[in-house]
Amino acid sequence: MKLATLRSDRRDGRLVVVSRDLTRAVDAAGIASTMLEALERWSEVAPRLRELAEELEEGRAPTAFDFDPREAAAPLPRAPQWCDGSAFLAHGELMQRAFDLPPIPDVERIPLMYQGSSDDMLGPHDDIPVLDEAWGVDFEGEFGVIVDDVPMGCPASRAGEHIRLLVQINDVSLRAFAPREMRSGFGFFQSKPSSSFAPVAVTPDELGDAWRKARVHLPLRVELNGQWFGEPDGGAMHFGFDELVAHAAATRRLTAGTIIGSGTVSNGGGAQGSACIAERRATELVTVGAPETPFMAFGDQVRMEARCNGKPVFGAIDQQIVRAARA
Amino acid sequence: MKLATLRSDRRDGRLVVVSRDLTRAVDAAGIASTMLEALERWSEVAPRLRELAEELEEGRAPTAFDFDPREAAAPLPRAPQWCDGSAFLAHGELMQRAFDLPPIPDVERIPLMYQGSSDDMLGPHDDIPVLDEAWGVDFEGEFGVIVDDVPMGCPASRAGEHIRLLVQINDVSLRAFAPREMRSGFGFFQSKPSSSFAPVAVTPDELGDAWRKARVHLPLRVELNGQWFGEPDGGAMHFGFDELVAHAAATRRLTAGTIIGSGTVSNGGGAQGSACIAERRATELVTVGAPETPFMAFGDQVRMEARCNGKPVFGAIDQQIVRAARA
Repeated sequence: MKLATLRSDRRDGRLVVVSRDLTRAVDAAGIASTMLEALERWSEVAPRLRELAEELEEGRAPTAFDFDPREAAAPLPRAPQWCDGSAFLAHGELMQRAFDLPPIPDVERIPLMYQGSSDDMLGPHDDIPVLDEAWGVDFEGEFGVIVDDVPMGCPASRAGEHIRLLVQINDVSLRAFAPREMRSGFGFFQSKPSSSFAPVAVTPDELGDAWRKARVHLPLRVELNGQWFGEPDGGAMHFGFDELVAHAAATRRLTAGTIIGSGTVSNGGGAQGSACIAERRATELVTVGAPETPFMAFGDQVRMEARCNGKPVFGAIDQQIVRAARA
Repeated sequence: MKLATLRSDRRDGRLVVVSRDLTRAVDAAGIASTMLEALERWSEVAPRLRELAEELEEGRAPTAFDFDPREAAAPLPRAPQWCDGSAFLAHGELMQRAFDLPPIPDVERIPLMYQGSSDDMLGPHDDIPVLDEAWGVDFEGEFGVIVDDVPMGCPASRAGEHIRLLVQINDVSLRAFAPREMRSGFGFFQSKPSSSFAPVAVTPDELGDAWRKARVHLPLRVELNGQWFGEPDGGAMHFGFDELVAHAAATRRLTAGTIIGSGTVSNGGGAQGSACIAERRATELVTVGAPETPFMAFGDQVRMEARCNGKPVFGAIDQQIVRAARA
């Protein structure tokens, strides 16, 4: 089943069911008015949403309409919580080597995760507003999961049951702010403005064999200004999403609608390229002695899409950096 | 005007207006069903809420009922965002001296702030569930503000306009997890479970002269197991809340309902005592050579209240640490 949130006069938008090929949609308001509401009452509403999805797939939904991803907001425009991991260790190792950073102890045993802002998630075609190019604007192509209510202390072996939806994310990052924020120990804040989401959230079964060991085994194709930038595979996560959920829930329960991210998809920046500019710059630093690829400028455009056997899954993220008006 | 959220069958609870002395309340559903909804449409709903507050104060609200703070949830049980500063520099200086930490550059010019979780805020009398006493359970007494929509890049000089409500907070902290999370650069995560809130959120005018220079000039009285623990004054903030809001909004807009915290209220751990155990332990380390006060154990109870000229303002936080059931 595939779900999306269309913009409406409500901040949380309205829930629609989308066809497998992403061409058609049908309003789900009779079942749950928003995606958040659906997640709060998942066991009850999921069977009814699945029924509606079947009707749509079989052309039996009389109120179906053409699905326009430009009308889509983020699946959860205002999520209760956004916890972003850094589960592709190849990325961290490369950054460490390039910038001569001290190793983080137990990084193979304890996931790295930061608390991100979730009050204002961007849709797949929303502009990314920035006041100053000197902020070092970067993208990070990621996969993520959305959970229902997870009890505190939920072990990884049971965390998978709570993974209700999968999503594809652009974790926009402002590199100029990160070093000070990391050194302070307080972590990312100004360096992590709103993230952006592909138009469609899907139940794990939509991925077939590509969803196994709680990982998305799909290449994430990233293009910068129409040029191939990378196509690293999501299956290379060191920690599965079940382990990331368990980490997030170790000292508190998580409420329905919490989004857990994988961190930048990375195969180490080799032939598969990268899903963020910072990683390519680190590769350049290691191989040619200096970073060459600049961070994003106003008007630059990034596109990200994971396909499964050539077919669309989440739809594409396609965004431009724009100069924001001063407040 | 004083507002509270009472528990209901909805996760966001229901909005009530509370009398100045915190003894009576009246349902505000006809104006806005939740506090979040009120903040989203503040300019429109605030005058109507004020009218209702006057009716309540003058005994002209026929549906008024006794206000029971035990029925209160956090003002925003599920806030869009929680950004917590560390604006009392005396606290940081003491911790630095006690633990021989390296100084953070520009700490007097750039506020320290971390992104906290906001999906599951606790009410004033909710138990604090913990799986293991070895987590180093601590409280942090704080003040905070709730804003309406703040545009990106909003300067401090205009940020005050967006401060709609003031709150009193217990920022529960698990000290055992903090050092590793700080060293990793990713910041607090498992070390910061759900925060708790006093029952009532108030408009700044309720504080009279005690709200000036965007600071809450009130002592925050903290008691641990019925014993005086501290009474530091909120006026000693190095940065005002206007500066904290501007810092939070520097690279992104903030949506209505965002909560910005002051960090532990601190006058440096002297005669005024402390609003968290970690600060008292640091004081002990400096003065007698070793920390003596233990972190909280199951059954321990913390109470926090700021009063204004002897009268209640936000009501009290009064919570117990309880052993949580394993998931």
